[in-house]
Amino acid sequence: MERSARVAEILSWYGADSPGTLTNLARLLEHGRLGGTGKLLILPVDQGFEHGPARSFAPNPPAYDPRYHFELAIEAGCNAYAAPLGFLEAGARKFAGRIPLILKLNDHDTLADEDDPDQALTGSVADALRLGCSAIGFTIYPGSIHRNAMYGQIREIAEEAKAVGLAVVIWSYARGSSLSKEGETAIDVIGYAAQIAAQLGAHIIKVKLPSDHIEQDAARKVYEKTGIPIGTAAERVKHIVQCAFDGRRIVIFSGGGAAEDAPFLEEIKAIQAGGGFGSIIGRNAFQRSKADALKLLGQVSDIYSGKAQ
Amino acid sequence: MERSARVAEILSWYGADSPGTLTNLARLLEHGRLGGTGKLLILPVDQGFEHGPARSFAPNPPAYDPRYHFELAIEAGCNAYAAPLGFLEAGARKFAGRIPLILKLNDHDTLADEDDPDQALTGSVADALRLGCSAIGFTIYPGSIHRNAMYGQIREIAEEAKAVGLAVVIWSYARGSSLSKEGETAIDVIGYAAQIAAQLGAHIIKVKLPSDHIEQDAARKVYEKTGIPIGTAAERVKHIVQCAFDGRRIVIFSGGGAAEDAPFLEEIKAIQAGGGFGSIIGRNAFQRSKADALKLLGQVSDIYSGKAQ
Amino acid sequence: MERSARVAEILSWYGADSPGTLTNLARLLEHGRLGGTGKLLILPVDQGFEHGPARSFAPNPPAYDPRYHFELAIEAGCNAYAAPLGFLEAGARKFAGRIPLILKLNDHDTLADEDDPDQALTGSVADALRLGCSAIGFTIYPGSIHRNAMYGQIREIAEEAKAVGLAVVIWSYARGSSLSKEGETAIDVIGYAAQIAAQLGAHIIKVKLPSDHIEQDAARKVYEKTGIPIGTAAERVKHIVQCAFDGRRIVIFSGGGAAEDAPFLEEIKAIQAGGGFGSIIGRNAFQRSKADALKLLGQVSDIYSGKAQ
Amino acid sequence: MERSARVAEILSWYGADSPGTLTNLARLLEHGRLGGTGKLLILPVDQGFEHGPARSFAPNPPAYDPRYHFELAIEAGCNAYAAPLGFLEAGARKFAGRIPLILKLNDHDTLADEDDPDQALTGSVADALRLGCSAIGFTIYPGSIHRNAMYGQIREIAEEAKAVGLAVVIWSYARGSSLSKEGETAIDVIGYAAQIAAQLGAHIIKVKLPSDHIEQDAARKVYEKTGIPIGTAAERVKHIVQCAFDGRRIVIFSGGGAAEDAPFLEEIKAIQAGGGFGSIIGRNAFQRSKADALKLLGQVSDIYSGKAQ
Amino acid sequence: MERSARVAEILSWYGADSPGTLTNLARLLEHGRLGGTGKLLILPVDQGFEHGPARSFAPNPPAYDPRYHFELAIEAGCNAYAAPLGFLEAGARKFAGRIPLILKLNDHDTLADEDDPDQALTGSVADALRLGCSAIGFTIYPGSIHRNAMYGQIREIAEEAKAVGLAVVIWSYARGSSLSKEGETAIDVIGYAAQIAAQLGAHIIKVKLPSDHIEQDAARKVYEKTGIPIGTAAERVKHIVQCAFDGRRIVIFSGGGAAEDAPFLEEIKAIQAGGGFGSIIGRNAFQRSKADALKLLGQVSDIYSGKAQ
Repeated sequence: MERSARVAEILSWYGADSPGTLTNLARLLEHGRLGGTGKLLILPVDQGFEHGPARSFAPNPPAYDPRYHFELAIEAGCNAYAAPLGFLEAGARKFAGRIPLILKLNDHDTLADEDDPDQALTGSVADALRLGCSAIGFTIYPGSIHRNAMYGQIREIAEEAKAVGLAVVIWSYARGSSLSKEGETAIDVIGYAAQIAAQLGAHIIKVKLPSDHIEQDAARKVYEKTGIPIGTAAERVKHIVQCAFDGRRIVIFSGGGAAEDAPFLEEIKAIQAGGGFGSIIGRNAFQRSKADALKLLGQVSDIYSGKAQ
Repeated sequence: MERSARVAEILSWYGADSPGTLTNLARLLEHGRLGGTGKLLILPVDQGFEHGPARSFAPNPPAYDPRYHFELAIEAGCNAYAAPLGFLEAGARKFAGRIPLILKLNDHDTLADEDDPDQALTGSVADALRLGCSAIGFTIYPGSIHRNAMYGQIREIAEEAKAVGLAVVIWSYARGSSLSKEGETAIDVIGYAAQIAAQLGAHIIKVKLPSDHIEQDAARKVYEKTGIPIGTAAERVKHIVQCAFDGRRIVIFSGGGAAEDAPFLEEIKAIQAGGGFGSIIGRNAFQRSKADALKLLGQVSDIYSGKAQ
Repeated sequence: MERSARVAEILSWYGADSPGTLTNLARLLEHGRLGGTGKLLILPVDQGFEHGPARSFAPNPPAYDPRYHFELAIEAGCNAYAAPLGFLEAGARKFAGRIPLILKLNDHDTLADEDDPDQALTGSVADALRLGCSAIGFTIYPGSIHRNAMYGQIREIAEEAKAVGLAVVIWSYARGSSLSKEGETAIDVIGYAAQIAAQLGAHIIKVKLPSDHIEQDAARKVYEKTGIPIGTAAERVKHIVQCAFDGRRIVIFSGGGAAEDAPFLEEIKAIQAGGGFGSIIGRNAFQRSKADALKLLGQVSDIYSGKAQ
Repeated sequence: MERSARVAEILSWYGADSPGTLTNLARLLEHGRLGGTGKLLILPVDQGFEHGPARSFAPNPPAYDPRYHFELAIEAGCNAYAAPLGFLEAGARKFAGRIPLILKLNDHDTLADEDDPDQALTGSVADALRLGCSAIGFTIYPGSIHRNAMYGQIREIAEEAKAVGLAVVIWSYARGSSLSKEGETAIDVIGYAAQIAAQLGAHIIKVKLPSDHIEQDAARKVYEKTGIPIGTAAERVKHIVQCAFDGRRIVIFSGGGAAEDAPFLEEIKAIQAGGGFGSIIGRNAFQRSKADALKLLGQVSDIYSGKAQ
Repeated sequence: MERSARVAEILSWYGADSPGTLTNLARLLEHGRLGGTGKLLILPVDQGFEHGPARSFAPNPPAYDPRYHFELAIEAGCNAYAAPLGFLEAGARKFAGRIPLILKLNDHDTLADEDDPDQALTGSVADALRLGCSAIGFTIYPGSIHRNAMYGQIREIAEEAKAVGLAVVIWSYARGSSLSKEGETAIDVIGYAAQIAAQLGAHIIKVKLPSDHIEQDAARKVYEKTGIPIGTAAERVKHIVQCAFDGRRIVIFSGGGAAEDAPFLEEIKAIQAGGGFGSIIGRNAFQRSKADALKLLGQVSDIYSGKAQ
């Protein structure tokens, strides 16, 4: 496709990266319904690992089949599909080249109680090349007592991925015994999580939509003193984007907590209004019938492409 | 893009390859004006190394600039652009993701007299990943006393390339002191060269258009006894395709020796009629003005896509 | 299948090998119509590389297709199918697990004149594992000035293959400027070639059927003085088997020079009578229609299994 | 530039280092407004990681943009700019060769409660070379229960860095459950921290400005018995410099706790009077407008260059 | 120093390189009297190896001392000093950081007769880092029967050098039994040699000043047909620059054959007029007294900086 001015601008932010990594970033940015707009809509399906299969797929049983998610992502015109090793291995040959793939290299289950979560390494850069992926994905838990080891892991993996021309997507989720439950989505904490992912060298950063809660006292003083606007969701998105190198790193947001479509689409509009780079939507996509999912993802795409508001 | 039945069929031939390599083969097959047809039109520019810059580029001076060839390949809607390290390094950042790239890993100059040619290694699989390439290219000279060493090199390089999901393109040119000049394009020799490249594990094989000359006595007996039709160019193309695993490997042809456009286009029609998979056209593309080149390549594309005959 | 006493005995000869290599030897010995008899019938198809595709496949055009040979070997109940990289890659997925595979790791073409032949490396132990092979195959040319380099190659490759549990098959063909044409099949030379392969650590040795010619003067004196019986083909086979560790290595024979079926089958009977371990039959198998090939290979199997004489 | 006598003297202290490392030390010592004086003024910006983006950059919002800090360091005539991977990657191409860079290889966040801090590895020596850095930076926490692991890390990293000609800067901050809060800046502890960094092979040591508090009883006895002068800030700086190999290692000081410019500049004068080698000034530089920052850093430079007192 | 528009433009041509390599290219381009102009004046001293010490240094005995050449290059304001391992090791500590260094990684002596010259590897990328070099230098001999091995060596070395942020300078000298003596400086051959170096991935290319001789018949036809102007030295320089990616690679010229200063300076003016990027001047620099050398190099610098014409 023609290179849009916006995609060219975004690629110019990654001057330390090789042409190989830029090529894969371009593949992500130029695929699907949002291709060329600078916006991203990604289907992630790691919930089978995170929450178990029945919690994840029983609401829409075709989703037990790994092929379902490739098809959903392709039919919805997503920019990419992200999943753990097993799900990608189960479809990578059949759907080779149909949609950019992101291999999640670490995963987390919920079979053991824990105050400070950690993730297990479940894939490698070599796996990503073998499966034809454009990027690797990695989750960090800022706030967990295991965070430093996780940062060290992604440092090493990201160096390896960049050397072979892959892009790096970091899921940055603040969690751990030092944070309150509402602190996990506090505006200061989400901004901090985005900054850490950016400093670790992520090309694409995925965070949750922040609330207007402020978790850390030291941060509260600054937010109040400098009067950072955080009253609306759009204002908060704008602040998070600022926290990730003043908008010079791609920041996308998870689907959020909304259970109903209307408030969910309001969140998308807020991300768009705040200058966010898009969404990564899992459960709101695959836990309903494909027809319903395609409808919802179509509405999301229309918002990000400017066709709807 | 939608996966066409023909591309799906072609990909099914490469069952020993990883999804990563299939992904890159699909990128080659689905890009450009011929995308999805199963046909390939590739722009190769290694003549600066092979014949020197003035002989290569003086007929069309803008072609001295490495950016020119990226632009020509993109504007002509080629499936890919193939070149040595220096030319790709000089444009890979600017044109990242705009067209599939093939890094030629060995090259040959003509500054020294030689009866049995050899090539120098001039790039690596790591370079190909760093530059965002979809495939590596390698020339072998069946007939040269150096051939066994060259086969050993591509064996090792192809193994490395396949392990990281790249496709392998082999230029198979019979040359050497044991062959007559006309033997280099003899039907038996070209068929043999195609077979060797296929047995070495090439995904895409590039040979010259064969004449009806038969070089080897042992072969002549078989051709005559079994009555292989080689009277027309289309029949010869059909036989070469048969020689490459009965049509189950992609075989493309160089531009041929025709200096005029009309006979050149007749050759393209013969390739199409004989079931060839397309062309790799260098000098006939970049040694004329860009406008003329786009016109000619457009005519070639029309033939391969069935729009013209 | 039940382990036959003969197979158990044969496996007992390979006490230095790992259980992994024994497992693969057992796969070869226990597959197909001759499974369990201690005899082997192997289909090799490297003639496309050795003689070019038309000379190899034009007599039976379906043989251009790599799938044909898998099917032929399976339908004929061969113990194994041996071929270069390209042919195995083109069918290994479709026929995975259907028949033991032997990857030829070096190959030779006949496009260049040469007095002392050499082979090119065209595959690796890693390729063999990736393709699910039970053994690797390697040709040496005792008598060629390149022989020492070839011995060094197979030493290194065999070490690697054994370390990962593969079996090693050596094609030992005496050739080179120091030997006369009839010397290539002289009884002393073939016996010598079998000994060298055995000393190099081959599990299975493939030689040509010897004539009663004696090539080397020093050998002649001994053959005459000690009165080694070499008058009949069966006697010569018996001597060759003796030359390969007194029958404690598997020695199989190529199809020979017979153009007609009757003398060809006489050769098979001689191999059987002399205690040979079987045959590796290429051109006499794939250069005729499949029906004819199945008939002939069936006759061969009947001889080796004792059903016919 | 001409080599000043002072720089030549300083370089003579590092006799075990390669010319490559001396070259990079010279680059640090000879760049910027203080180039050649033997004094250093370094801009470090790791606070985004250490304190989060809003606390760090909201007081001066242009500082969210990674380009801002390159520009500030260049315009202020600093000797070097130090930052984590993400910040350097975001500007290293645009500002290549404009100012010596120091890649912080470990970093620490404040999202989790902890009594004994540790840092995460966030960069590598290979990253430093790839980004064109002159030095690597590393923080140790003498006093933390994690200190021995940190010493082991920097030992290994420093060995690697020196082998490729990079300089090594150690941030030596005493912290941990065994130290009181005021003990972190106690004169005996800071001196001890400087000694440890020097013994670990640092070329440049960064410590905090010490108070006249003495933390450890065993130390207090010696300080009192030998009458080490620690009454004034300059005396304390002089002692710290003595603690780092009697002035034969470069020791620089952090900006200190002063909130107002006047007392801050008094600290600079004390460092200068005590023979300190300069300052590393982060928050006092980038948490004000660039104009104000340039003014303050100019005043600092004037003190160190002897133009002001 | 401030980044000049010309240096920024030149750096933009190297989009496939890391910021580290750009940093070292910038060091070469921004050092010395020509710093920032985009022109280069480099002192190379490998003649001790190439021609023996007496032939090289007896005309100016202080030049036997390795320190002499560092001093000469520094005092003359050269952009860089290039030499083999021994000469750099003998001064790298003393002059650390005083001038960018280029380690010649291969060298050639003239103690053995040969029709086709080759070079010995005499240094490594690790040596270059250890000695604080900004670039590595490597000579190739297009036209020699050893050329392919040399191309393979620099391919591997250049990949390694680029990975650690060094720049690559290729001396491309056509020589060998296939070329006439005057063919070594023929316009077609020099242009070809420049192209090969560029395709091999050189950042800086060093060739000899070409004559108007045309060596190869195939080239002569093109030069005459397309009317490439090669009548004056400036026209020839312009053509050579064109042959190196249409001016998008740095091409510098050796001192030429002129024995007298006046014609030598005329050559410099021709290089300047033709758009060449500067000179690498060895014997004309160190085979005269330092005073005379500084005078001559000053005149050269004045021409390249536009102060003289």
